Amino acid sequence: HRKEEEPSVAPEGRYGFPLTGADIRVYANHSLSYDQARRTPRWVAEHLSNEKLLGKADRKHCKFRPDPNVPVLFTAHNDDYLGSGWSRGHMAPAADNKFSEQAMAETFYLSNIVPQNYENNAGFWNRFEMYCRDLTKRFQDVWIISGPLVLPEVGANGKKTISYQVIGKDEVAVPTHLFKVILAQKKGFPSDTLALGAFIVPNRPIGFDHPLTEFQVSLTDLERMSGLTFFPKVDRTRVPLKNLCNLDSCKLLSLKDFNLYIATRKVGDARNVYKLDKAMSELKEAGITPDEYLLKLYAAKKNELASKEVPDHNRGD
Amino acid sequence: HRKEEEPSVAPEGRYGFPLTGADIRVYANHSLSYDQARRTPRWVAEHLSNEKLLGKADRKHCKFRPDPNVPVLFTAHNDDYLGSGWSRGHMAPAADNKFSEQAMAETFYLSNIVPQNYENNAGFWNRFEMYCRDLTKRFQDVWIISGPLVLPEVGANGKKTISYQVIGKDEVAVPTHLFKVILAQKKGFPSDTLALGAFIVPNRPIGFDHPLTEFQVSLTDLERMSGLTFFPKVDRTRVPLKNLCNLDSCKLLSLKDFNLYIATRKVGDARNVYKLDKAMSELKEAGITPDEYLLKLYAAKKNELASKEVPDHNRGD
Ligand SMILES: [Mg+2]
Ligand SMILES: [Mg+2]
Repeated sequence: HRKEEEPSVAPEGRYGFPLTGADIRVYANHSLSYDQARRTPRWVAEHLSNEKLLGKADRKHCKFRPDPNVPVLFTAHNDDYLGSGWSRGHMAPAADNKFSEQAMAETFYLSNIVPQNYENNAGFWNRFEMYCRDLTKRFQDVWIISGPLVLPEVGANGKKTISYQVIGKDEVAVPTHLFKVILAQKKGFPSDTLALGAFIVPNRPIGFDHPLTEFQVSLTDLERMSGLTFFPKVDRTRVPLKNLCNLDSCKLLSLKDFNLYIATRKVGDARNVYKLDKAMSELKEAGITPDEYLLKLYAAKKNELASKEVPDHNRGD
Repeated sequence: HRKEEEPSVAPEGRYGFPLTGADIRVYANHSLSYDQARRTPRWVAEHLSNEKLLGKADRKHCKFRPDPNVPVLFTAHNDDYLGSGWSRGHMAPAADNKFSEQAMAETFYLSNIVPQNYENNAGFWNRFEMYCRDLTKRFQDVWIISGPLVLPEVGANGKKTISYQVIGKDEVAVPTHLFKVILAQKKGFPSDTLALGAFIVPNRPIGFDHPLTEFQVSLTDLERMSGLTFFPKVDRTRVPLKNLCNLDSCKLLSLKDFNLYIATRKVGDARNVYKLDKAMSELKEAGITPDEYLLKLYAAKKNELASKEVPDHNRGD
């Protein structure tokens, strides 16, 4: 990654200026600036495209671990998260890197992770990430910046206070909110279309009754709150930046479609008949009828598992 | 100041990576890294020497104001501080810049300022800064890094929480603590002596019953808490770094000597006889006997003022 350099003229720099470690770190398919005091990224940048989502890289082969490029004094460790009540939330999602096992593995470095509410991580934020991937069907290039925020609240005394938990021995900062900025580009004539959406999502459970648009903010407001300037090479005065949520839907999967998606994934991943049938009965209990694709997948999988059925000691786990 | 540059190879950097503004800003006699989210410096570096403390630059001619080099979206303003209950605390002290009016004026940029408890600013921290200046009598070169910290507290539930107020429209972060790292160099044979002291001081009133050594910490602990690496060009394995508080006194002015100092400054600055006599009676009320230097200064000043006495409408303010 880029090395910090100092102006050498100032006498106060004789023994070197303090290093913040905020320089840009480049990985196979994401880049980030690390916050050495909070042990989380400041921001993580990705580029998404249709091709990168194709492939067989599987998170089952990935392990969360300290980023070997971050000085040990400033890195988080898995122990900080375990038992903390907070999940390890990817900023660059693993699933954006199906094309490369290395790229996916690098998203499991703790430099790309923040303490995230479990339900938010598995639910709303997950659906948000799915929407981002879906954008690659309608936009050739999608750039995304994600990161943590700590925002103030006004107390009973009228004072504004920023308050956040820190977890584990390394005192990893639990963000109060997460942000995502999406810049999507569509080829066009006479010129390409650039659409932008900025979002701030509270780091807590968010149900299906909250649309994504509820969390949209102006880019300037997000910049003021985060202290960051996004996409500095976009000339905001010249390029007519469209509002992503006007140009595209900004609609996340509904409760029904999300449950269908989860069931379909479970059926596809099932390694025994018990797990296969459990996925289907969970769906039934949620009152959701399987669609044609799921029914076909289920039938094919059942056949496949029956043909190679062996005694399974893990049955029932 | 140094411009942020990005690796241009990564496709996620096509429209530029987010700018943190953490790059190093160099002024006439200090350098700093600015925190665009907190609207305060992250750290401020200075070099002190005996010569720089000589001169006639006077803070009366200086005004606190936004740093013109900081983007307006990220700068603090005087209004944020006024009526907030917090003083504007210099990180690079004005008085370290007597040799240059420009250097002193630049320490009044709000990029060098943090919200500081009034009593701490005028009292303990002030005496700490005086000690730093005094070091230049015994060390040819003194490098100092100062800055704000937000540190966690353990709540009743055992959870660690970082909590701090933000003030004004710009939501300037009030640090829970301030830090100072001092590196002092003495010429010597066969080699120079390098001494280091690191200190963390709570941002609240601290009385004369607390010695500076009470707030000394290991450099590694301060680095872990601040997320900064200090003096990276000092080879800590090769150079025998001495503990500043062993080599030197780390003793701040006592209550008596501090009051004498304040009275002496007031007498020197007095612009009428009323103020002159007020300074002396305040000292008497504090039960402190003026020393010979103050008595002589008082007599000289009284003579000077009597000779040019004019009707003074401000008398009694
Ligand atoms: Mg996730
Ligand atoms: Mg001060």
